[in-house]
Amino acid sequence: MRAVDLIRRKRDGHILGADEITAFVQGATSRSWPDYQLAAMLMAILLRGMNAEETAVLTRAMVFSGETLDWGDLAPRAVGKHSTGGVGDKLSLILTPLAAACGAVVPKMSGRGLGHTGGTLDKLESIPGFRIGLSVDEAREVLKRIGCFMIGQTKTIAPADKILYALRDVTATVESVPLISASIMSKKLAEGVGGLVLDVKVGDGAFMKTADDARTLARMMIAIGKSQGVRTEAVLTAMEQPLGRACGNAVEVAECIEVLRGGGPSDVRELSLDFAARLVMLAGFDNARQRVEAALVGGQGLETFRRMIEAQGGDPRVVDDPTRLPLATSRHIIRAERAGIFQGWKAEAVGRAIVRLGGGRDRAEDAVDHAVGAVVLARPGERVKTGDGLLELLFRHEPRLGAALEVLVKYLAPKSGDIVDTRKTGLAWTTIFNKRVFLLPHHGEMGICRPGKRGMRILLARRWSNRRRR
Amino acid sequence: MRAVDLIRRKRDGHILGADEITAFVQGATSRSWPDYQLAAMLMAILLRGMNAEETAVLTRAMVFSGETLDWGDLAPRAVGKHSTGGVGDKLSLILTPLAAACGAVVPKMSGRGLGHTGGTLDKLESIPGFRIGLSVDEAREVLKRIGCFMIGQTKTIAPADKILYALRDVTATVESVPLISASIMSKKLAEGVGGLVLDVKVGDGAFMKTADDARTLARMMIAIGKSQGVRTEAVLTAMEQPLGRACGNAVEVAECIEVLRGGGPSDVRELSLDFAARLVMLAGFDNARQRVEAALVGGQGLETFRRMIEAQGGDPRVVDDPTRLPLATSRHIIRAERAGIFQGWKAEAVGRAIVRLGGGRDRAEDAVDHAVGAVVLARPGERVKTGDGLLELLFRHEPRLGAALEVLVKYLAPKSGDIVDTRKTGLAWTTIFNKRVFLLPHHGEMGICRPGKRGMRILLARRWSNRRRR
Repeated sequence: MRAVDLIRRKRDGHILGADEITAFVQGATSRSWPDYQLAAMLMAILLRGMNAEETAVLTRAMVFSGETLDWGDLAPRAVGKHSTGGVGDKLSLILTPLAAACGAVVPKMSGRGLGHTGGTLDKLESIPGFRIGLSVDEAREVLKRIGCFMIGQTKTIAPADKILYALRDVTATVESVPLISASIMSKKLAEGVGGLVLDVKVGDGAFMKTADDARTLARMMIAIGKSQGVRTEAVLTAMEQPLGRACGNAVEVAECIEVLRGGGPSDVRELSLDFAARLVMLAGFDNARQRVEAALVGGQGLETFRRMIEAQGGDPRVVDDPTRLPLATSRHIIRAERAGIFQGWKAEAVGRAIVRLGGGRDRAEDAVDHAVGAVVLARPGERVKTGDGLLELLFRHEPRLGAALEVLVKYLAPKSGDIVDTRKTGLAWTTIFNKRVFLLPHHGEMGICRPGKRGMRILLARRWSNRRRR
Repeated sequence: MRAVDLIRRKRDGHILGADEITAFVQGATSRSWPDYQLAAMLMAILLRGMNAEETAVLTRAMVFSGETLDWGDLAPRAVGKHSTGGVGDKLSLILTPLAAACGAVVPKMSGRGLGHTGGTLDKLESIPGFRIGLSVDEAREVLKRIGCFMIGQTKTIAPADKILYALRDVTATVESVPLISASIMSKKLAEGVGGLVLDVKVGDGAFMKTADDARTLARMMIAIGKSQGVRTEAVLTAMEQPLGRACGNAVEVAECIEVLRGGGPSDVRELSLDFAARLVMLAGFDNARQRVEAALVGGQGLETFRRMIEAQGGDPRVVDDPTRLPLATSRHIIRAERAGIFQGWKAEAVGRAIVRLGGGRDRAEDAVDHAVGAVVLARPGERVKTGDGLLELLFRHEPRLGAALEVLVKYLAPKSGDIVDTRKTGLAWTTIFNKRVFLLPHHGEMGICRPGKRGMRILLARRWSNRRRR
């Protein structure tokens, strides 16, 4: 079976057989297909698509390109969760110990953040001493004792995915539902879980921009899970606004502790309870929701989190004293300069601002500063008074704060020439770099406005002054 | 301008700007774009297409990736011809000296054969001593003295095309009208001609299978030529059947000499006259057709061919005595075993059989045996008697003859189960490897038949006996 013939078949829109897809994955893993043939095939798959059966075969071939884990007598209760990624998405840190406290077994393997979305591993590493690189044997021991662990993917898990993902990143072949599904599911299926809950984020700040796209991805992943005998559920959750208040690394861990203590933002609390309950249910328990709520109220979730941190070498005292987390002490608050209804922050803008502060990465090899981040001070739809805080930026270096403010406005700026009738909307506004910025009524976007006859004309700012208003 | 962003734009169906396309071609030429990004872009171009303007820009960027030739005071009369390739297509060898004999200047650069189609360079090299590798200065001198030369493309011509073509070949990105057009035209435009005639072959034996596809390719190439100020004409010619009678290398040169002597098959003669006249007309002469006919009848075409061979180091005596060409002496004739109407030979089948005989190449690095080939003995629609020759194979080694016969039948075999009502068609048939093979009435295909109620049921032969019938 020649590579060029398989590429031609997919290019021409044919459905590939199991032997053909397996040849492609084995070619990638063994490096017998050169990168240029893999790249051509990936582009053909992106543009021609793959049906559910092809995608299931692709996933299976990727799973078996490496090691598959087996948790022995824990396996029947072993469940997993995966999020497609968002801003402020810290749910895994809460629901993993919470579900484990209720009897589920949660061998959680996570990834790092890239672009505007954060990653669980980076958040965990903000806990002093926390080791995300346990060996499989160490992890198994923690799992037996505590019911959960949270580590990075081992090198032996789905190596074909690592090779293909690196290539997709540089060949503009990331945005393909079959390829995304196979990439996610191959890793989760290799982790040896019998049940899986998928959090498919949808909205401007997510990978999937529309509910239709998110639903397509969810359906594809559910079909793959089922084809491999793994009970799979998917929940579509909104990612227009950051999830919760805290966005960053250490600051998100602090919010997780707050939630596990029974407090925290209602959206984070509600989603954590819901996802944890699904995991507990998939692990075979009745009355999952009640169990999870009891574990939250009774503090067993927090206690499991503490024990897991300790078992993985981290400082468990952060659970009682979150100030032990490395939090930046320099803070800049963006405040409302006119009272009104606050429309909320666009998630991607906040995520990109955090990257500029040093709290995220544009390239996989970049280092991350766990101490910086952002805290959303006003929620969408809230009525704010003049002087009320809208967003607090935790920063370490002044020039990075400047870059973050710049990116905030850049990402929020609507098209030049758009008109907003501010007489009707009664929006709150603020000023960044001497530019008045509004949150638009319809899109939740921020605009730079100039008074005009019919209201405010939005201008696309091309250059920014270096002067900052504090 | 990041490669991945340009790939994404084409992937999403956008029209690329001149700076973007130039960045792609420069990235290929300088090797600053790795092959996997070039491959992804090529697949995106193949599947998303390029409009006429993008293709013109692509061509121009490929032209200027290398040297462009200038023939000085000969330039106003310098004209070129290109064929998209076929079986038995020896027109260049005839029309180049013929047009030059009429005053046109024909600096002809050609390629080698690949797959079932032959190449002008291979045919020329069957002339003992003939050098296709003249330097530009040597070529210029021959052009001044004789009015034409026939050489291979120099390394300095359109290097971007060489890099992209090699990659297209192994990534299933050959069959794209914009990429084919840019590849052909970049080489022809770099050759410094002011007029260009394109022979776009159409049919089963050609790259373009339908007249619509061929017309699309022709229009695209004409638009590119015009955008560069080169008068460009295209002629669509049929490539269902081999062109003329001789197919191979030395055997085709012999047929060319026959035509230049005023004989030869009528199709080769007619097309040679037509194309030569177009070249002469584009070179600025009136009454081109009369001039060309006179040069053929008067022997000036043959004389120019002889002088060109001599100037390029070849043995000019082949013109008077074609037996000086290296022609294989072992011959096998396929004969009609039942009288009837002969439907003709499928060009691709004959081309593939010649490759098996050693007269063509499957891979660019394969060597070619100039002595072998095939001669079509019966023309389509001809009434043949039992025992009449249908095809003569010139071979050197018996096992290669076996392989050629095998491929002939394989390529001609229609789908298993097709029914041909031989009571109506009165087709001639023959036997290869003990299998009775017919030429089908509708598609000009050859079938293996077994008598049945309604006529003959065509069987797809799966295994062939090693016994040969001579």
